[in-house]
Amino acid sequence: MKIGMIGLGKMGGNMTQRLRLAGHEVVGYDRDAALTSVPDLAGLVAALASEPVKVVWSMVPAGSPTEATVTELIGLMSSGDIIIDGGNSRFTDSQRRAALCAEHSIGFIDAGTSGGVWGLTEGYCLMVGGTAADVAIVQPIFDTLAPENGFVHAGASGAGHYTKMVHNGIEYGLMQAYAEGWELLMAASADGLALNVPGAFSAWRNGSVVRSWLLDLADRALDDDPSLHELKGYANDSGEGRWTVEEGIRLSVPTPVISASLYARFVSRQDDSPAMKMIAALRNQFGGHAVVHEAEAPK
Amino acid sequence: MKIGMIGLGKMGGNMTQRLRLAGHEVVGYDRDAALTSVPDLAGLVAALASEPVKVVWSMVPAGSPTEATVTELIGLMSSGDIIIDGGNSRFTDSQRRAALCAEHSIGFIDAGTSGGVWGLTEGYCLMVGGTAADVAIVQPIFDTLAPENGFVHAGASGAGHYTKMVHNGIEYGLMQAYAEGWELLMAASADGLALNVPGAFSAWRNGSVVRSWLLDLADRALDDDPSLHELKGYANDSGEGRWTVEEGIRLSVPTPVISASLYARFVSRQDDSPAMKMIAALRNQFGGHAVVHEAEAPK
Repeated sequence: MKIGMIGLGKMGGNMTQRLRLAGHEVVGYDRDAALTSVPDLAGLVAALASEPVKVVWSMVPAGSPTEATVTELIGLMSSGDIIIDGGNSRFTDSQRRAALCAEHSIGFIDAGTSGGVWGLTEGYCLMVGGTAADVAIVQPIFDTLAPENGFVHAGASGAGHYTKMVHNGIEYGLMQAYAEGWELLMAASADGLALNVPGAFSAWRNGSVVRSWLLDLADRALDDDPSLHELKGYANDSGEGRWTVEEGIRLSVPTPVISASLYARFVSRQDDSPAMKMIAALRNQFGGHAVVHEAEAPK
Repeated sequence: MKIGMIGLGKMGGNMTQRLRLAGHEVVGYDRDAALTSVPDLAGLVAALASEPVKVVWSMVPAGSPTEATVTELIGLMSSGDIIIDGGNSRFTDSQRRAALCAEHSIGFIDAGTSGGVWGLTEGYCLMVGGTAADVAIVQPIFDTLAPENGFVHAGASGAGHYTKMVHNGIEYGLMQAYAEGWELLMAASADGLALNVPGAFSAWRNGSVVRSWLLDLADRALDDDPSLHELKGYANDSGEGRWTVEEGIRLSVPTPVISASLYARFVSRQDDSPAMKMIAALRNQFGGHAVVHEAEAPK
């Protein structure tokens, strides 16, 4: 079928390529003049004018870029058309946008999309929320983007992004578990045990209980740099981990591992720890324990 | 080659079968008269008398059973023979046993073995510690038990079980991350979002960032019982999670996720929480907050 794709970066660009390789016609729009095939969103929608149902997939960052895109598309599209948000939007935003689209009789599908830069060849796991009728219209696109059995109609509007949010929350915990194990092996190795740490990660990929795609990636990273000394121990977070923890709080569901993995990232971004300044001050107050002053801190 | 196998349960039994299918000769001993092919360990060692190096693999539970087995084997075996401990022994025990064996010029290999009941067909990931000379002698056995690239000589004595310990610590964190995500999806579903939770787990197996062997098993479990209502939320731990956390403490390595996953299992085994009794008592003391008494507790 023929669809519009907005955002031709590492995700949208690869998805466009995967769709075209399967025979779909994709009109692509990007702010980057070198990538786009239409001058603006109006041009994109106009290029789909001959379709019975105009379908546009937005693959731009969550938050303001997605909000601006959806808002503009609502003004350009017609009753019966369908907007898909494939970004990592908060599910409450998707529920709100679906309601807004519905006021204009425009369909809205929130499509949680996982697979990263490998999706082009391996396919993208898709978790979609929306009406069965809208999903059925876009199904040929979903079937091309997802690998076999890698698609789920998760529920009504918001369900796709909710499922993707939890997916990413789980991902935080998985990554932190491997990372802690790796740090412990490296520390034990330095302590005298002289372990073959990259060899362990590599062997675990075959036959062990912890084998996974993230482990495959960790092994690749260690192939390139066995002690990761090229990297700083600094990790960003892009929202979905926070939302997962917030949902745990809203629904009174304990998420100790997902929360701890989020907090570990916060710690990684601090040059110094105000909380540990306070711990040091209190230890000094009640026990006369030595403190380390800024000027004498080990570098 | 020809080896002895001690312990023919779900692990040792399947390993024996995998070895025999590949043409190795295995003399098996088990306390269960229905399984064993020799009456005792003396008979097992005697059955290997024609071998230039007698190799015996112990696949019995860690702790006393392994201690008793290794101690008895040392009395029965000769200089140059090799004892392999494939159980989940603590690495310090393996280091001690290796030193004890060395006093009798007997080789000792600690072989962390992962793969569970699936190892028969998929192979066992093996993480071994010991001398290069001893490992080389047993290599044909390792090559049969492990899948391709599923073997690592992790280092000297203790390195195999250390690596397996960390592997299992990671496993605790991975399992808890999936479990928290599942609980959150189920709670959100009950809260009104009506998610297709088993469908999400199933789709994640294909193309998503969280795909893994443990996810495959979770999906199987949900196939059998989509809400797991047949199970009680009670999880044992068999030692390796504790040891991983203890090693983190010894080496000052933060393991927030592995620790949290271990503590979550402790919580799961409490009928009531003494700590939460204290929290309730304190809330009542300082704020007059209502408490729940034993007799009126919700069932």
